[in-house]
Amino acid sequence: MTIEVAVVGASGYAGGELFRLLLGHPEVEIVGAYDIKNVGLPLPKVHPNLRGLIDLTITEPRYEEIGEKTDLVFTATPHGVAMKFVPKILDGGAKVIDLSADYRFDDPATYERYYVKHESPHLKAIYGLPELYRERIRGARLVANPGCYPTAAVLSLAPLVREDLVDMEYIIIDAKSGTSGAGAAPGEVTHHPLCGANIRAYAVTTHRHGPEIDQELSKLAGRKVRAHFTPHLIPIVRGILSTAHVFAREPMSKEEVLQLYREFYRGEPFVRVLDDLPQVNFIVGSNYCDIGVECDAEGKRLVVVSAIDNLVKGASGQAIQNMNLMFGIDEAKGLKGPPLRP
Amino acid sequence: MTIEVAVVGASGYAGGELFRLLLGHPEVEIVGAYDIKNVGLPLPKVHPNLRGLIDLTITEPRYEEIGEKTDLVFTATPHGVAMKFVPKILDGGAKVIDLSADYRFDDPATYERYYVKHESPHLKAIYGLPELYRERIRGARLVANPGCYPTAAVLSLAPLVREDLVDMEYIIIDAKSGTSGAGAAPGEVTHHPLCGANIRAYAVTTHRHGPEIDQELSKLAGRKVRAHFTPHLIPIVRGILSTAHVFAREPMSKEEVLQLYREFYRGEPFVRVLDDLPQVNFIVGSNYCDIGVECDAEGKRLVVVSAIDNLVKGASGQAIQNMNLMFGIDEAKGLKGPPLRP
Amino acid sequence: MTIEVAVVGASGYAGGELFRLLLGHPEVEIVGAYDIKNVGLPLPKVHPNLRGLIDLTITEPRYEEIGEKTDLVFTATPHGVAMKFVPKILDGGAKVIDLSADYRFDDPATYERYYVKHESPHLKAIYGLPELYRERIRGARLVANPGCYPTAAVLSLAPLVREDLVDMEYIIIDAKSGTSGAGAAPGEVTHHPLCGANIRAYAVTTHRHGPEIDQELSKLAGRKVRAHFTPHLIPIVRGILSTAHVFAREPMSKEEVLQLYREFYRGEPFVRVLDDLPQVNFIVGSNYCDIGVECDAEGKRLVVVSAIDNLVKGASGQAIQNMNLMFGIDEAKGLKGPPLRP
Amino acid sequence: MTIEVAVVGASGYAGGELFRLLLGHPEVEIVGAYDIKNVGLPLPKVHPNLRGLIDLTITEPRYEEIGEKTDLVFTATPHGVAMKFVPKILDGGAKVIDLSADYRFDDPATYERYYVKHESPHLKAIYGLPELYRERIRGARLVANPGCYPTAAVLSLAPLVREDLVDMEYIIIDAKSGTSGAGAAPGEVTHHPLCGANIRAYAVTTHRHGPEIDQELSKLAGRKVRAHFTPHLIPIVRGILSTAHVFAREPMSKEEVLQLYREFYRGEPFVRVLDDLPQVNFIVGSNYCDIGVECDAEGKRLVVVSAIDNLVKGASGQAIQNMNLMFGIDEAKGLKGPPLRP
Repeated sequence: MTIEVAVVGASGYAGGELFRLLLGHPEVEIVGAYDIKNVGLPLPKVHPNLRGLIDLTITEPRYEEIGEKTDLVFTATPHGVAMKFVPKILDGGAKVIDLSADYRFDDPATYERYYVKHESPHLKAIYGLPELYRERIRGARLVANPGCYPTAAVLSLAPLVREDLVDMEYIIIDAKSGTSGAGAAPGEVTHHPLCGANIRAYAVTTHRHGPEIDQELSKLAGRKVRAHFTPHLIPIVRGILSTAHVFAREPMSKEEVLQLYREFYRGEPFVRVLDDLPQVNFIVGSNYCDIGVECDAEGKRLVVVSAIDNLVKGASGQAIQNMNLMFGIDEAKGLKGPPLRP
Repeated sequence: MTIEVAVVGASGYAGGELFRLLLGHPEVEIVGAYDIKNVGLPLPKVHPNLRGLIDLTITEPRYEEIGEKTDLVFTATPHGVAMKFVPKILDGGAKVIDLSADYRFDDPATYERYYVKHESPHLKAIYGLPELYRERIRGARLVANPGCYPTAAVLSLAPLVREDLVDMEYIIIDAKSGTSGAGAAPGEVTHHPLCGANIRAYAVTTHRHGPEIDQELSKLAGRKVRAHFTPHLIPIVRGILSTAHVFAREPMSKEEVLQLYREFYRGEPFVRVLDDLPQVNFIVGSNYCDIGVECDAEGKRLVVVSAIDNLVKGASGQAIQNMNLMFGIDEAKGLKGPPLRP
Repeated sequence: MTIEVAVVGASGYAGGELFRLLLGHPEVEIVGAYDIKNVGLPLPKVHPNLRGLIDLTITEPRYEEIGEKTDLVFTATPHGVAMKFVPKILDGGAKVIDLSADYRFDDPATYERYYVKHESPHLKAIYGLPELYRERIRGARLVANPGCYPTAAVLSLAPLVREDLVDMEYIIIDAKSGTSGAGAAPGEVTHHPLCGANIRAYAVTTHRHGPEIDQELSKLAGRKVRAHFTPHLIPIVRGILSTAHVFAREPMSKEEVLQLYREFYRGEPFVRVLDDLPQVNFIVGSNYCDIGVECDAEGKRLVVVSAIDNLVKGASGQAIQNMNLMFGIDEAKGLKGPPLRP
Repeated sequence: MTIEVAVVGASGYAGGELFRLLLGHPEVEIVGAYDIKNVGLPLPKVHPNLRGLIDLTITEPRYEEIGEKTDLVFTATPHGVAMKFVPKILDGGAKVIDLSADYRFDDPATYERYYVKHESPHLKAIYGLPELYRERIRGARLVANPGCYPTAAVLSLAPLVREDLVDMEYIIIDAKSGTSGAGAAPGEVTHHPLCGANIRAYAVTTHRHGPEIDQELSKLAGRKVRAHFTPHLIPIVRGILSTAHVFAREPMSKEEVLQLYREFYRGEPFVRVLDDLPQVNFIVGSNYCDIGVECDAEGKRLVVVSAIDNLVKGASGQAIQNMNLMFGIDEAKGLKGPPLRP
């Protein structure tokens, strides 16, 4: 089987990472690299790591045509952009995995409160977190690939929240991200002299991944959950470490929590429940989400730590995992490269 | 006035930082550099930044003698060491500021639970956080210099806790430290290939600075407070960012919280209450503790972020601030060097 | 075809990288992980990135037996160790690729001057730089895998030196390496507080990779060449950038030099001659050696820059490339994963 | 004595560093902070490290007026800007230290070849390297503050070149700089995802600091010298390490070279000749230039390594050193803060 795929938003980091990973996928042919920037440039001019590996030129997208001539389109454009053209691609016949936030929210009003006015709110997508929605992804034509922070945070809390084992009022998610999460456009926040030996918190009560996390935790809990999410920027390039502080309704031991997690994630190809705590350098370059947990002496406070590569499980790797599901092939295909350490 | 000071534990990072700062102090003469390591080496062999600036040789300490011939001794030895010899120094007549944990706990039993058996539990020290205990430090002969994390965490929460404005059950302190906090001894945790592009949480419910924070918050609250402290190691050399997640008993606006903090810290030479959030690179190299706050839309969750240089306000700078108080001179003397940025 | 391989020195970084890469090699079965450290530990305890991917336990090596039951043994032990047991492995029947310096020198006396007394100087190995010795590697039973710096430096100079186009008296190689090159054992040089915001030169005229570079340049030149090699340590984990400063005998244009290099490396699977200069982040995680060149206005001074991942093309990846040659399979097999960027 | 100073170009990194250092200078009053950007902003909004330390607002410059009301103006504007207004400031009566390249070249034609057309080529400045031109700086009204790379490179080579001890044809200067050298304007080169785990060479034969180095080495040699300068960008914020590779005319021992350097720099307040090699973290935050040297076994190749903080000795610290000379006060005043390490 060969899936013919195209990438819209080929110049960005998620786009580049899609190419990196798709090049190793035995059942994929990359047939198009589209962007409104860098049109006419060979792809390796923009992503020099790919020199000699791929021979495409960045082209300005004509969406209906792309939809007609490909099986699947990854849209890796900034928030508020894909919603303008995804309907056209779908009309052309291709399936779509959108890596932006445009289709992540069940309620368009939530999207509009945190982002911009939605231009295709009628389109319904499946939220592309395979560990929670595998079956629905299999049948989807449009998948909304989760945000990087929500991937790490939701996976780290899903078992406890679904089983209603923690106090839903006091879920604190204190996350730390590398700078590649800020994207390819330079700015003061990622200017090395200011961030290279620095750490900052940002959008501490208002980050747009907060409502996305809340949506997913609420679905798991079966009722409205409002978690408390605070992100930080740290001077690494790749990786997110998400530290969830929660309070058990009834005292739990670490072994009980781990047992629950191992059961919940049994058979998952990309979730590793560890005996000790994850670190970013256990997972960099791979599609793994590593999870570990500690309990305090009373079994009251639980700290659940998860680690992902924001560009892989937090973006392009998860998108490919979704693609594999949508096309009925081995979910891990093309994603088996081990993490790099050191 | 000239204060004759000596440093025991001259080889470590806190020791080196004491020399760096004391060299610029107009009323201090450094008369001794003691250690059991590197004996006989010129100080700049151990701290090459000090070449040409100081002419001392590291000497093996004879404590009574040191106590007799100096006005003040900084003891910057590992935990469990100073308690063996501080009584001797005090007997000699000098005052002591201990930078280890040995005298930080009001209750020796707490110390012994988290560290080792105490060998001079009868000695009572003043906890050297000038913003809380200025007057008592002025009269002290033995000051226990606070831990780095407790300095950042306690200063970030003191106003809210003393005024009983937040739910004491749900105080989460998620802190991030640079690697110099781990000290001068190499080990796997600070081995660059493993930590240079990594972040990890460690001792997430059991770190020894937890009970120290609890002791101080409890004194501020006037009742037992148990906060929830989790540290992380990030790939910067200097600096701690401490993010406190707390829940207001009654809704508060950011402006109300800032007002409270500005009032609480009015006139403090080394606490800066900011309109926005602090970053590590606002304070590196200086004795400042910067504090900022955000509230969520409901005024329910407050996030208080503080930033210090762990080697300055978190160790040696604060020790000098304490010295200034103990000798009745301008509290900021020798500590006025601005932070470095970028 | 299945090549049964074992790794001696399984705990180190080169060992870990061998496992990372071999796991993706379709014609390899890893049958043994040997070390004198960490005996009895599951491999993923030592290399946590490999959790869930490999099920071996570290075993104490019995060399004859290993030689009998495997097709190929990678020896990734410190310098001066492999020479003690490689003869035994060869006696058992297996081929050997040694990643240490033990068999890199044609003249054991050179080895002994820079390392230690050789214990198996009679054994002759092929120097495992496929771009220069491909045919001989194909027939080899013992391959000496090149050093990381020599790989970058020799590949960057081979065309100019073989064609005798530069002044051999004034070849300066100023190289910069990430910290993983220092290996897995913590020490002061790689202690993050001291190296994380630092750069240092080391062994500036005496580094042991100097004579290795000289040996290879001399063979290329057909006469004794003494280059001038100086390494630096920089605060990145992976990667070497090697900057060669040379002087053309006759003025050359950049285009002429590039032409020469493109010709020399035509068809090479892992050398990319770039139009512009390489950067470390074009090649991290991959087996590529990227090379670029600039000439000054007079065409007199040439600067040739090369970049490799010290753990891949500088160690384990090149070893696998050699393995592929020794077993007659596609030289690039298992090594096709693109570099990571960002 | 109080010198009233102003800074034009207050928003940049050199400007910020001037304020940081001048705040600790006992004989300086900062009377103006000028820029065409950020006009109307309090200085600490732009340099948050300075909050609480300085109370100036950034003002649009009126040059004649500034010249009339201040004793000295530091101009820290981009290249090609100061030349437009320095004559006006001088006309007003103030002395000027220009931190840009505009007045560094004895021959305006050289400037114009590497920068832009000069608009005040008639103005003659003294090149502000105190170790070479101390007496002339004392009497100067306009000082051209040296570039960061030239400061490190020229100081590292001056003794050997003035004494004509090395082959002037083969002077290679391979320098490595932190990212703050690129200035405060974000761009792709300093975008953390691309530079945070990277090293690159740039402008390898064409960097504009090359002719500046050549000018100074030529004056030292008493004849035209053309050195070969190649810079690199490394992922640290502050610091330059400059590695000079030179060839002795007659064999020299390390001790002979050190002897020469110690003699040459005897009494210099900011040059430290070390027994071993300098590292960036010996000097960060200070005005020191540390220099060390190694010779190969034959005494033929010499490697001279120097380290400076590019923002201090490479820019603002050196400017203040020049100011001290111009106003007849202790050359080291305000510059005595020791380097930070770790």
